[in-house]
Amino acid sequence: MNRKIVFNITGKLLEALAFILLLPMVVSIIYREGEFLSFLIAAAVSFIIGFVLVMFTKNCKKDLYAREGFLIVSLAWISASLIGSLPFVLSGEIPSFFDAFFETVSGFTTTGASVVTDLSSLSHGTLFWRSFTHWIGGMGVLVFAVAFIGNLSDKAIHILRAEMPGPVVGKIVPRAKDTSKVLYFMYFFITLVQVILLWLGDMNLFEALIHTFGTAGTGGFGIKGDSIASYSAYSQWIITAFMLIFGINFNLYYLVLIKRFKAILKSTELRTYLGIAIVSVVIITLNINSAFPSFSDAIRAAAFQVSSIMTTTGFATSDFNLWPNLSKTVLLILMFVGACAGSTAGGLKVSRVVILFKMGLREIKRMIHPRSVGSVKFEGKEVDEHTKSSITTYFAVYMMCFFAILFLLSFEKAPFDFETNFSAVAACFNNIGPGFGLVGPMGSYAQYSEFSKILLSFAMLFGRLEIFPLLIALIPSTWRRK
Amino acid sequence: MNRKIVFNITGKLLEALAFILLLPMVVSIIYREGEFLSFLIAAAVSFIIGFVLVMFTKNCKKDLYAREGFLIVSLAWISASLIGSLPFVLSGEIPSFFDAFFETVSGFTTTGASVVTDLSSLSHGTLFWRSFTHWIGGMGVLVFAVAFIGNLSDKAIHILRAEMPGPVVGKIVPRAKDTSKVLYFMYFFITLVQVILLWLGDMNLFEALIHTFGTAGTGGFGIKGDSIASYSAYSQWIITAFMLIFGINFNLYYLVLIKRFKAILKSTELRTYLGIAIVSVVIITLNINSAFPSFSDAIRAAAFQVSSIMTTTGFATSDFNLWPNLSKTVLLILMFVGACAGSTAGGLKVSRVVILFKMGLREIKRMIHPRSVGSVKFEGKEVDEHTKSSITTYFAVYMMCFFAILFLLSFEKAPFDFETNFSAVAACFNNIGPGFGLVGPMGSYAQYSEFSKILLSFAMLFGRLEIFPLLIALIPSTWRRK
Repeated sequence: MNRKIVFNITGKLLEALAFILLLPMVVSIIYREGEFLSFLIAAAVSFIIGFVLVMFTKNCKKDLYAREGFLIVSLAWISASLIGSLPFVLSGEIPSFFDAFFETVSGFTTTGASVVTDLSSLSHGTLFWRSFTHWIGGMGVLVFAVAFIGNLSDKAIHILRAEMPGPVVGKIVPRAKDTSKVLYFMYFFITLVQVILLWLGDMNLFEALIHTFGTAGTGGFGIKGDSIASYSAYSQWIITAFMLIFGINFNLYYLVLIKRFKAILKSTELRTYLGIAIVSVVIITLNINSAFPSFSDAIRAAAFQVSSIMTTTGFATSDFNLWPNLSKTVLLILMFVGACAGSTAGGLKVSRVVILFKMGLREIKRMIHPRSVGSVKFEGKEVDEHTKSSITTYFAVYMMCFFAILFLLSFEKAPFDFETNFSAVAACFNNIGPGFGLVGPMGSYAQYSEFSKILLSFAMLFGRLEIFPLLIALIPSTWRRK
Repeated sequence: MNRKIVFNITGKLLEALAFILLLPMVVSIIYREGEFLSFLIAAAVSFIIGFVLVMFTKNCKKDLYAREGFLIVSLAWISASLIGSLPFVLSGEIPSFFDAFFETVSGFTTTGASVVTDLSSLSHGTLFWRSFTHWIGGMGVLVFAVAFIGNLSDKAIHILRAEMPGPVVGKIVPRAKDTSKVLYFMYFFITLVQVILLWLGDMNLFEALIHTFGTAGTGGFGIKGDSIASYSAYSQWIITAFMLIFGINFNLYYLVLIKRFKAILKSTELRTYLGIAIVSVVIITLNINSAFPSFSDAIRAAAFQVSSIMTTTGFATSDFNLWPNLSKTVLLILMFVGACAGSTAGGLKVSRVVILFKMGLREIKRMIHPRSVGSVKFEGKEVDEHTKSSITTYFAVYMMCFFAILFLLSFEKAPFDFETNFSAVAACFNNIGPGFGLVGPMGSYAQYSEFSKILLSFAMLFGRLEIFPLLIALIPSTWRRK
């Protein structure tokens, strides 16, 4: 165990976080809000801790492996969330530390679950910071760090691998650092396009920025109690489209960049992803049509909600909590499926679901013809045994974690019912945000106890980091020197 | 595909079923009820169809393989359920065919979900038949057939394998037919002990028989609207104990028979099974204690319900639907875990859960030390790759089926809410019986539409036969000749 490098990179990340915290400070100053001071203090704290960590580990060896990658990612996410919640507490806008931590974890993990019951009471700086955590967390706290921190060995791929969602993470370009930069460049570019398109509609620049951050990170924090419901149909369709866009594997955008268009069209994951989305929109539109004034309203609501839930964003244009059972069940299933691997979205990921499905078919074949071998292909290539076993095991561990969290959450007394608790775990663990019942799109997580808030915060972290890194970091023996 | 043997064995099974149907007829006659005629007609129909099938396939080849095994099991279970529902319809006691089919499938699959809202309106013969299907279905419709039908080749192990629950089915004794006979002997013996013990308490012989059938098959059909609640504490404890006993792998009883007691104590599955049961009883007792007049009442209710749900029996002594969230969530998790492989119970089975858990641990180890191999051991032996891959794939297919059924069930309109639908699927698919909400222990499945009743009937069959046999039988190409 190279412990020093773990603290060293965490330190560097906190130094970087200090600079990021100056952005909401600037917003506060522009709007002449006193909250700018909270951001300044938080930035100073972040820089000092980071500086001290880096100083004490200056002479660390540069080599790091899978294990160090997991620890770096876990420590980085937890410390970024702790520091990130400081401005909320210091400004008194979210006075309880547990609430502030929940809100920050929800931001960085791009969950979008909120404990704030009255969003109009928050200052512009705080609203900006809340949404900006989505943007940073979407692509990955450490993808950011790796891209902009100098002096990293090529072993940094282990960090990216630990942080990036999906069953297989390849390097797009040979060096880890360049991979990060390419990713952030594309991320930044699509973000910019969305901001401009939203600004052209009925949103001002601030609103366009906030909602783009929420879309890009597939997070879902907004500035209004009714989320996106009061914006124009134009804005709603733009957000629908961009939620879907940010749910696509970023490797495909790299293929656009290098003009390999045919490869994109062949992508099984992309096709399946869009196929599931279309089928779900059709089912829900037909199911809710009678409750809407026109068919175009119904299809817009259905398309928006399907994109929002499937990409685990969590924006809402209507209270889907009141929709019929069928629509709610479709949304619940989409919560678990999630979007593409290598995107900013949460959930199991379409690629995993496809491979699990194909493994099921192969098992049936093998049961009929016991001697047949039968391979599982994905994206034109055969899936090797190691990946298959990782995916099925991940799925099993995923379900076990789900039930373990549900069990712990059920210590909550009334008014929390089964539907609320079940969907709260699904919505946090899959990084979606709103669930059904009390935690529906027009509700909040404020009523949960402090214990449950910490529990759900960790559920979000487990979901975002895909369980294993955090689980490994929680085993004391991992930290032992060799 | 040896289609002839499939029809031949199904025919023989129907011939046997005709004789079984004479038992409830005798009960009807004893109680001087006119319903005896319905059983006689059903028996005649069963015998004639069976006789014709056997006659036309007399010269079939005796060889059968895995594929034939799956088809035999599927066809046998569906036709036994169709014939078995005749007496209900003919007597007019369950006039709707869909209801009668649901009730019979629920009986044979030992689910215990009921559409009967007023049990006191049923005649003794019908009550007996309803519960006797549990007893037959518990050990397996075909284990019964294989044990008592002559003239079967040793290949019959493929039939047992397709029907028996759990990841690995071994022969207890070298010949399949003898294995069946040993199983039925032990099953019969334990049943007899329970009947006597219950008879010694506050039950008459009829009640003792009915409730023993429900316990032995881990089914749960009773004769009173409040299930076991109005019987004495003595009877409740006896049933608690025997539910747990019937949830143990029957191979272990064979070890008792041949006096290898040490091997029993070493069984990982048995230890885990009892461990989970004890922990659950402790949690629920503490959780519900304040709502009961005394601690002994609380522990009795908790122990009864844990045994009932974990073994997927579904008897109830109190309306656990009204218990606090925590207790309900524990019960919900137990619904999925189930009892031991090779028992009469449904669910995922403890052995699968243990192996999945160990595979999760191995995956963590492999992530920390990428070059480590690390084996998964169960019952002292290393689990081979094929079994591991079967278990993880089964789990994935199991969850997919679960959500597919939940999706189809959600076409139901109000008053069916999420909790009711979710627990209805869990309770039918895992062969438990009662769920929460409208289908709670004091409710019934009567209000569901005909479509949903057929759907849930198939959910029960899929659960009992562990998905694959029925899935394979539903693929038309399986039936094609070579």
